[in-house]
Amino acid sequence: MVKTKAKKKKQPVILITNDDGVSAPGIRALVEAMKGLGKIIVVAPDKPQSGMGHAITIGHPLRMQKVNVFDDVEAYSCSGTPVDCVKLAVDKVIHSKPDICISGINHGANHSINVIYSGTMSAALEAAIESIPSIGFSLLDLSIDADFTAAKKYARILVEHVLNSKQNDKHLCLNVNFPKGDDKLIKGIKICRQAYAKYEEEFDERKDPHGRRYYWLTGEFINFDKGRDTDVWALKNNYVSVVPVQFDLTNYELKKKLEKNWKF
Amino acid sequence: MVKTKAKKKKQPVILITNDDGVSAPGIRALVEAMKGLGKIIVVAPDKPQSGMGHAITIGHPLRMQKVNVFDDVEAYSCSGTPVDCVKLAVDKVIHSKPDICISGINHGANHSINVIYSGTMSAALEAAIESIPSIGFSLLDLSIDADFTAAKKYARILVEHVLNSKQNDKHLCLNVNFPKGDDKLIKGIKICRQAYAKYEEEFDERKDPHGRRYYWLTGEFINFDKGRDTDVWALKNNYVSVVPVQFDLTNYELKKKLEKNWKF
Repeated sequence: MVKTKAKKKKQPVILITNDDGVSAPGIRALVEAMKGLGKIIVVAPDKPQSGMGHAITIGHPLRMQKVNVFDDVEAYSCSGTPVDCVKLAVDKVIHSKPDICISGINHGANHSINVIYSGTMSAALEAAIESIPSIGFSLLDLSIDADFTAAKKYARILVEHVLNSKQNDKHLCLNVNFPKGDDKLIKGIKICRQAYAKYEEEFDERKDPHGRRYYWLTGEFINFDKGRDTDVWALKNNYVSVVPVQFDLTNYELKKKLEKNWKF
Repeated sequence: MVKTKAKKKKQPVILITNDDGVSAPGIRALVEAMKGLGKIIVVAPDKPQSGMGHAITIGHPLRMQKVNVFDDVEAYSCSGTPVDCVKLAVDKVIHSKPDICISGINHGANHSINVIYSGTMSAALEAAIESIPSIGFSLLDLSIDADFTAAKKYARILVEHVLNSKQNDKHLCLNVNFPKGDDKLIKGIKICRQAYAKYEEEFDERKDPHGRRYYWLTGEFINFDKGRDTDVWALKNNYVSVVPVQFDLTNYELKKKLEKNWKF
């Protein structure tokens, strides 16, 4: 009994990472928002890693070093991807599983199809694969001077909620997006599904000074999904969107169809 | 009526990519396996891109150049990720959607959780987001001298099947893995779900000649899922595994639970 009680009083370990890099304002905001909730450890990329999806580094080795960028918070920068950061943090920094892994606050939206390209969300998903509850946070404001006030408030509410929940799903992973703007405008938190949207790509084709072609990826986000239960709808209507995310990519509906119709 | 008939006779356009790079034996095998099924166009990375997941290149521009590596087949190498290759192929090479996008044949397994790290499968999934039917192919043999005979045979069967299916799912995406070994040992094709497995990581910590630490990612694949409906089971039992894959990552079961239990 005594042992159990002592265990319960132990500070939770909160692993923080991101994809904008350890020096981004968004991760600083997230560290500030978590103060007092547990022992914070930061392991984040040493440079921007946006759009890295679930990439891991296998062709070359990783570097990691202690950095002094947050007051009183143990922090490391890592040469790898956001997913590498989570793996390295568990194996070489914490030497065990943290109580929660949070990622962000991303400068820019990770709602809808963005979840699949996002390093922020892939870090969270990697933690979930390891049975570490996780949340990725993103703000619909790409600006370096973005106002994280409301995001910080709601991030803290959600992390406290997950840490205090006794019946968390084993692989809990949440994709949380904050609307841009003043805290007072936010109507609340809404559990959503991922909207079906995609990017309409158009590569910007240019020629270098030597006459050789190169291409910049550009794209417009197009939403095809009018559902009021989607994250896109929630954010447009000033809710904080929360999409529970999974790493089982099986399309069970299609599986049933193929089993019925495909004969070899 | 005449118009419809003419349309039906048009050769299907088959886009081929991979993550091992344009010069890998696996993509050569796939090109060979598709001969005669349609107009083949290859756009593949100019270097190995294994483990790149759904990464896209946004911080710097892409290069692409025509290469002459397959007899009579239009082929391009691209400096980006497998997902970049698909986007670039649609926008700048084919200038429209191909009838199918196939990826591989990967040197090494992409069953179970590998789907999430795999550049091969991310390329296929990117096509599916664009409503292009897609299949990722992988062989459970990492060797550069791997025998692709059986893989080629079954890849052709599956691509023909998808091209001839009139009622394909709008976002059809299949993760196909081939067991290693002789064609005669293969029992058939099995529609499966993704097994729950993960990697137990252990970073190999070393010191460089200057005394500074670096880390190599290593990991052991651990399967926790004994289901006979999984891809891991199918492959162990010498079936070709086919897992229908989706890009909607919403965990609907958890969504229901949270809607019921979470009050803010």
